[in-house]
Amino acid sequence: MTKNTKVNAAILIIGNEILSGRTQDTNTSTLAKWLNSIGVNVQEVRVVPDIEKTIVDTLNVLRKTNDYVFTTGGIGPTHDDITAESVAKAFGLKYEVHEEAYKILEAYYKPGEFNKGRQKMVWMPQNAELILNPTSGAPGFNVENVFCLPGVPSILKSMIGSLKNKIVGGKPIISHTISLNTVESEIAHSLKSVQLENKDVEIGSYPFFHAGKLGVSIVIRSEDQSKIDECSSQILKFVNEKDIEVVDR
Amino acid sequence: MTKNTKVNAAILIIGNEILSGRTQDTNTSTLAKWLNSIGVNVQEVRVVPDIEKTIVDTLNVLRKTNDYVFTTGGIGPTHDDITAESVAKAFGLKYEVHEEAYKILEAYYKPGEFNKGRQKMVWMPQNAELILNPTSGAPGFNVENVFCLPGVPSILKSMIGSLKNKIVGGKPIISHTISLNTVESEIAHSLKSVQLENKDVEIGSYPFFHAGKLGVSIVIRSEDQSKIDECSSQILKFVNEKDIEVVDR
Repeated sequence: MTKNTKVNAAILIIGNEILSGRTQDTNTSTLAKWLNSIGVNVQEVRVVPDIEKTIVDTLNVLRKTNDYVFTTGGIGPTHDDITAESVAKAFGLKYEVHEEAYKILEAYYKPGEFNKGRQKMVWMPQNAELILNPTSGAPGFNVENVFCLPGVPSILKSMIGSLKNKIVGGKPIISHTISLNTVESEIAHSLKSVQLENKDVEIGSYPFFHAGKLGVSIVIRSEDQSKIDECSSQILKFVNEKDIEVVDR
Repeated sequence: MTKNTKVNAAILIIGNEILSGRTQDTNTSTLAKWLNSIGVNVQEVRVVPDIEKTIVDTLNVLRKTNDYVFTTGGIGPTHDDITAESVAKAFGLKYEVHEEAYKILEAYYKPGEFNKGRQKMVWMPQNAELILNPTSGAPGFNVENVFCLPGVPSILKSMIGSLKNKIVGGKPIISHTISLNTVESEIAHSLKSVQLENKDVEIGSYPFFHAGKLGVSIVIRSEDQSKIDECSSQILKFVNEKDIEVVDR
């Protein structure tokens, strides 16, 4: 992987609670924002249930088609936490007690509190590398390019610091937003022309409703600031010609 | 598809804005809750970018492995709205003006306002069936078992009524939650035993933080109320023996 290659990632959300609608996933957004900021492009997200075969099969697709895979959920102490064992199976590795993780949790809990339930959290694929958890002790881990994080959003967020040295991104993806007091159909034709003239820049158009006002946010994304500036000025040119109010830019 | 077969669905979220973390998807939760209530099990969610080949390939996998596929996003008037054309390609159908949709939008807008940008929204796969939109006029559509909905959450929500006659579910999936004032490791062993004795019931364990209190919600899911009741009483039995406070049930 060189600095010039685009670096891609997939996020694999593991958990019946997301698929049933009971829990609103927010980890995708947290991870994606951070990954973009370090030049890693999230090209796919999948949500799968707590079924071992599904997790193993999905992991074996994603880890071969992406530079990095991030999983969330399923690394706690209960019977429905089967991520670590599934990762071991996906890589054909033993599933065993991780000595370093054992020591961390033994020191983390008060004497007598590191019970059998909690000890499940130190079972990992053989030779997994730990991802330290500053919030609640139990570490995540990675095997090669698969990084396993917890599902609880506050704990996941706190572990991004521990991930930083492990992920090598490309050029950061820069994003610039121009918000307009208009509707999409007014600008669709002109915006398409700008996109056609700037094929390697990603231009998205998103209607919004804010404080009772209807508008459109145009989002320009590229690794190259000068390309963003060029697109931005082409957009502002037609916006000006159409006498559309710029709400924010 | 008979009433006794499990009815499965996949949700395909289309949009760069979700993958970049800019927009928080909430449509999964909205659709999943509704689908569960009518006996349709969501077995997979995928988020993909606005890239035609990716959308076509993903659709062609999901529509063959699920009874229903619901897409969200990409049916607006701008250049990045490529869902309808992608669905046409996935099914090998012409992409053309849908006469009925044209009439609906012609009547919806004031004279002169049904401009070229808006007319893009009536281009659909040949013979698509419309899904009416009570909020903003522009209909969604389905081709066979693929149902295409907009990305704006309030509009999507308002269209569920128009979907109701088109989706045939199985037995509704019933969910019962028991919330405890404890930590997962305290109950992990006993809960696993209950799961092993009730293999066809889905039992999930989810830590929560609410009003400064730490707890665990146990979620029991099945199509069969009597199985939920049986699991529930087995859980309450060990909860009682362990002298754990039930917060809510």
